[in-house]
Amino acid sequence: MINNSLCNFSNSVNEHNKEKKTKVVIVGATGYVGIEILRILQGHPGVEVTAVIGQSFVGQKISNVYPNLRGIFDMECSALDIDSLPELGDIYINCLPHGVSKDYIPLLLEKGKKIIDHGGDFRYKKADVYEKWYKTKHPLPELLEISVYGLPELYRHKIRNASLVANPGCYPTCSILGIAPLLANKIIDTKNIIIDAASGVSGAGRKTDLMYQFCECTENFKAYGVATHRHTSEIEQELSILAGEEIMVSFTPHLAPMKRGMLATIYANLKDNVKVSLDELIELYREYYKGETFVRILDKGELPETKNVVGSNFIDISLVLDQRLNRVIVLSAIDNLGKGASGQAVQDLNLMCGFPEHTALTNPGLYL
Amino acid sequence: MINNSLCNFSNSVNEHNKEKKTKVVIVGATGYVGIEILRILQGHPGVEVTAVIGQSFVGQKISNVYPNLRGIFDMECSALDIDSLPELGDIYINCLPHGVSKDYIPLLLEKGKKIIDHGGDFRYKKADVYEKWYKTKHPLPELLEISVYGLPELYRHKIRNASLVANPGCYPTCSILGIAPLLANKIIDTKNIIIDAASGVSGAGRKTDLMYQFCECTENFKAYGVATHRHTSEIEQELSILAGEEIMVSFTPHLAPMKRGMLATIYANLKDNVKVSLDELIELYREYYKGETFVRILDKGELPETKNVVGSNFIDISLVLDQRLNRVIVLSAIDNLGKGASGQAVQDLNLMCGFPEHTALTNPGLYL
Amino acid sequence: MINNSLCNFSNSVNEHNKEKKTKVVIVGATGYVGIEILRILQGHPGVEVTAVIGQSFVGQKISNVYPNLRGIFDMECSALDIDSLPELGDIYINCLPHGVSKDYIPLLLEKGKKIIDHGGDFRYKKADVYEKWYKTKHPLPELLEISVYGLPELYRHKIRNASLVANPGCYPTCSILGIAPLLANKIIDTKNIIIDAASGVSGAGRKTDLMYQFCECTENFKAYGVATHRHTSEIEQELSILAGEEIMVSFTPHLAPMKRGMLATIYANLKDNVKVSLDELIELYREYYKGETFVRILDKGELPETKNVVGSNFIDISLVLDQRLNRVIVLSAIDNLGKGASGQAVQDLNLMCGFPEHTALTNPGLYL
Amino acid sequence: MINNSLCNFSNSVNEHNKEKKTKVVIVGATGYVGIEILRILQGHPGVEVTAVIGQSFVGQKISNVYPNLRGIFDMECSALDIDSLPELGDIYINCLPHGVSKDYIPLLLEKGKKIIDHGGDFRYKKADVYEKWYKTKHPLPELLEISVYGLPELYRHKIRNASLVANPGCYPTCSILGIAPLLANKIIDTKNIIIDAASGVSGAGRKTDLMYQFCECTENFKAYGVATHRHTSEIEQELSILAGEEIMVSFTPHLAPMKRGMLATIYANLKDNVKVSLDELIELYREYYKGETFVRILDKGELPETKNVVGSNFIDISLVLDQRLNRVIVLSAIDNLGKGASGQAVQDLNLMCGFPEHTALTNPGLYL
Repeated sequence: MINNSLCNFSNSVNEHNKEKKTKVVIVGATGYVGIEILRILQGHPGVEVTAVIGQSFVGQKISNVYPNLRGIFDMECSALDIDSLPELGDIYINCLPHGVSKDYIPLLLEKGKKIIDHGGDFRYKKADVYEKWYKTKHPLPELLEISVYGLPELYRHKIRNASLVANPGCYPTCSILGIAPLLANKIIDTKNIIIDAASGVSGAGRKTDLMYQFCECTENFKAYGVATHRHTSEIEQELSILAGEEIMVSFTPHLAPMKRGMLATIYANLKDNVKVSLDELIELYREYYKGETFVRILDKGELPETKNVVGSNFIDISLVLDQRLNRVIVLSAIDNLGKGASGQAVQDLNLMCGFPEHTALTNPGLYL
Repeated sequence: MINNSLCNFSNSVNEHNKEKKTKVVIVGATGYVGIEILRILQGHPGVEVTAVIGQSFVGQKISNVYPNLRGIFDMECSALDIDSLPELGDIYINCLPHGVSKDYIPLLLEKGKKIIDHGGDFRYKKADVYEKWYKTKHPLPELLEISVYGLPELYRHKIRNASLVANPGCYPTCSILGIAPLLANKIIDTKNIIIDAASGVSGAGRKTDLMYQFCECTENFKAYGVATHRHTSEIEQELSILAGEEIMVSFTPHLAPMKRGMLATIYANLKDNVKVSLDELIELYREYYKGETFVRILDKGELPETKNVVGSNFIDISLVLDQRLNRVIVLSAIDNLGKGASGQAVQDLNLMCGFPEHTALTNPGLYL
Repeated sequence: MINNSLCNFSNSVNEHNKEKKTKVVIVGATGYVGIEILRILQGHPGVEVTAVIGQSFVGQKISNVYPNLRGIFDMECSALDIDSLPELGDIYINCLPHGVSKDYIPLLLEKGKKIIDHGGDFRYKKADVYEKWYKTKHPLPELLEISVYGLPELYRHKIRNASLVANPGCYPTCSILGIAPLLANKIIDTKNIIIDAASGVSGAGRKTDLMYQFCECTENFKAYGVATHRHTSEIEQELSILAGEEIMVSFTPHLAPMKRGMLATIYANLKDNVKVSLDELIELYREYYKGETFVRILDKGELPETKNVVGSNFIDISLVLDQRLNRVIVLSAIDNLGKGASGQAVQDLNLMCGFPEHTALTNPGLYL
Repeated sequence: MINNSLCNFSNSVNEHNKEKKTKVVIVGATGYVGIEILRILQGHPGVEVTAVIGQSFVGQKISNVYPNLRGIFDMECSALDIDSLPELGDIYINCLPHGVSKDYIPLLLEKGKKIIDHGGDFRYKKADVYEKWYKTKHPLPELLEISVYGLPELYRHKIRNASLVANPGCYPTCSILGIAPLLANKIIDTKNIIIDAASGVSGAGRKTDLMYQFCECTENFKAYGVATHRHTSEIEQELSILAGEEIMVSFTPHLAPMKRGMLATIYANLKDNVKVSLDELIELYREYYKGETFVRILDKGELPETKNVVGSNFIDISLVLDQRLNRVIVLSAIDNLGKGASGQAVQDLNLMCGFPEHTALTNPGLYL
């Protein structure tokens, strides 16, 4: 995929399957999600990135914007030209905020292209939920019927055949996978689910807001968007589907002074008539996620830490049972830029394009 | 208080009240709590630190152990010699873990000395609760009748007259003050209180455990002690007293990659028959904490951040009302070494020794 | 000084000298230097801040901009109105960048006011040096004759009588004090002085530039302004005066992933004919800085760390003698916001207004 | 290489070349260098890690010690049993400190095994230099004749044929590559070379020393080992070889509050008779490093940052020419665990075992 590159090792690595590569276009490539997708795709033998679209850096090498890519991927950023867009690739990954991709998605679909979108627009079953939480008119409600929520562990088969995949938000990925087995097995009270989560600062994207300045963030911890964060609605939609009843949750995001990483601490009361041991709970999770490459259910007594998943596409999940309160506490950790965004996008891409699901995603977390 | 010092400015600052100073002995002065007390007391016009006891550094200047004190406070660390201990001071602040102070507290009390203790031992009304959560026999259960829980906002008058004050844990301080007005006003369901909190690493003390090494902590977020942390029992004791009924809570501490600071996010369901607006909730908190110097109830829409209280003795509290769920979310922030330990110890000292409560505690948070 | 405040403790603390307080106006109060001056002045018994001027926040309480000040200092930010400016105070501290204060300094001087300026404008003896390094015409070259370089350890007596004091840059403060005794004693070769320094991010001020975003700064180390940083000229001017000959130096600033703190590592070759031991070097420094409250010359074998000075007005200096190379290595550490900016400004204010030089500056470093 | 693993994707990734894999044994696998080698080797198609030796964790899965490896590499740590050691592998990577590998290196060499050593022992041409700087008797001086300094850019051909490669220290790698072209081209004065460098904390290894605790390191910057650091001797040896004359340098390491990353700022005076432009200097470096995969000479005006190389095996080098002083300032950045240790070890392994030199090392830096 590195044919626009100065990279000394590109040829030998990728020579063997040059002709058959899937052409990937990244729209909004210069944000943190886009650049992490680019970084991951350097190790993907089956794709070729044919365009990186970044309005703020048109004509500049992306390796000038992100010098870590120097000599490895030196393609120039191009402008978003809707007319020529369909010619550029086979699959398009949109890394821009909600409301932007509407301008070109219909055309791409018409031309038979595949799309992975990172905005909130196509994550919803109903336009009115989107409109309520995003406080804006839905641009293309008719596409909600064909769009698929890009969480492979829940919608793998639909993703395989989808043209339009809406990659879930980072908090929803971490929360939904954390709580799904409890709801699917109908062992918890659905009225008192509380999700308390913390994220690294990269979750906010590459912005120049004062609140994300180093001196404002470092050595600081705070909550934000309490009881109002948009991801609440996304979490509630998916939990409701899993439970077969309407569920509302408390969701509180926090900002932790680190680049990457996300941890959700989830509280749910067991139903009065449910008697379950911690061993049984762990087994129930392992059964639910059997065969899932990227879900690791930790052993009894182990707790997830973000450093174990940062840089990877894994989600680590632990169960704690508070018998005094007949309450389950689930802890789930992801890299907000990995399984929470870019890694999951590549996982979706692999499913949509027929690659083994783990292609380019086999790196362990960084730890250090 | 700096008469053992090389400090150029000590005399002029403190000259006027030299003869009347209260003699303070700090036992365990070389830990993070002890050293922060020392730092705070540099600005206290009414006390003189007459001994700093630190077993690991006997004979060394404390300013060699903490070079920030160089030229300001250069006293030598002394050994803990129980026989001579009572001669050293008027008030003793014990900064060692639970179980240690039992060896000298009875003697000090007998000699009419005052004590502020940072261990868990004397925070409890009943020895069996301590014994259950600390998994050890209580050394001096007979003292539980005279010891006072050192939370001035709840026990100011008792602290004034106490000989033995047990300074609360950092998480209990942050949690109890956060939730007290709700319980005192009996507007919440006592069955579903959930406290999710994060602390900076200094809360663990000055230890050399691998888990607190820089490379293991930085850029990492994790929970620990889930459903088993000792502070749970301390929180439950005080909440039960406030509510007049036995209360159990979920309490989950997290470790955030920062030195200082603590934030608690507290969830409680309003009673079914309670109708209250956010304005009324805020007013209820302001009324409850009326006249309290160190409690700041934030305005509607404002949320606390640890950087605003770090370096100070303040607690910042915000209220959020989730009307969809009839649930209150309280956010409270302290410096775990300030209001959560050393600052509160000085506040207690001021009460016990007849100084204005805010003496040496008027610094705003650092922000930067 | 807290008469515009809600603060419970303000009165008792300051009652006794209310009538005689010096009126301080801070122009550019909402930047990091301004706010740190405000924080320091909370502990100053002899001054009253009568106006905080911050163009971006006119009409807002400064405690809304910096909530650490809530309840302690809640004055509203006012606009810069040059006509009414002279009525507001006795001494004006300008915390805005170079080129701004020119608009009101002449008027203030005319009205007999005192000024401490943080821009580069009045730090120079010669306008052409300023013009070369700042690449702009000097606005008021005639004032260079009366302005005093606000480094008390070198210019204490001039500062006492000055109307216009130019507070030195952070790097120059750290560098000049680090090397002054070597030059004053004429024991080093003046041709190969190299100053390699690192600063925390607050040195850049409260900016929203992408390069100072948390995710761009954390876990990153880099040099900047190599061989071109403006502070080079300020350092060279003062070193040349000390040496009695023109000196040019290499100065390389680096950005370290921390809020505050600055360390300079300074290399200088001893003159061929100079034989000096490390003990003698240390003694020479201690003699040079005899009586200086804020300069701490460390013992042999000790090295400065920024955490020991952060939050204070101290500079810690160590000497190392590399006998293999006949080279001295000086290490000096300050808080870039303390002795490097705001602390030194208050030290200058104390001198200019007749307070004891250490007033409000007696805090030790934070360490934690 | 993941045949001891639970990993779902191991088979498909590595199936094709299972039988021919080179067997790698990592001694001291549970330190930071060892674990990073393991992490890199997960992406290496030609090797199989057959044993991970870690005395402190014998019998534990390495994925319990480093849970990022869970499900990917779950091999048990084994004890160091010298007798059976030669049967375990084809190539041995020693990640223990100096002085340890002497116990088994002779036996391994005798059995025809290859060794990459991370101690200082075999980096020297002369035992007495080692003995002077390490203050211990050299254990196996006779091996210094056959050991090769594992810096591929200087000794590629020797490494290819070596049995015993001494992987350079992190500071020497960063410094030597930074300055080599200047010395090889004989354009600098060899008397005033100054290397001022900063490293992330992982450079100290996985230790529990108090000085590397989070609260002691974060938000702190300091120098250490000034004029005495062992790496000085390693740098001087290699620079002397390059220059053809004995060279002594000032080398000052600093500790920066970050996990990974290293930056060297190198000062050298151009010879009086040398006239060279910055463009020519850059060209001279590019010529010197022509064909080198992992050396990136930045364009004029660009400066290296550690975030661009962290997680990779690259070294980024910039040149600055201070014409006022006729002095070159070289800035070079590496990942101290990448090109400074584990990455370079894999690069050496690739050379020694006949793999393409970049195998498993093609990842760009992380940036985030």
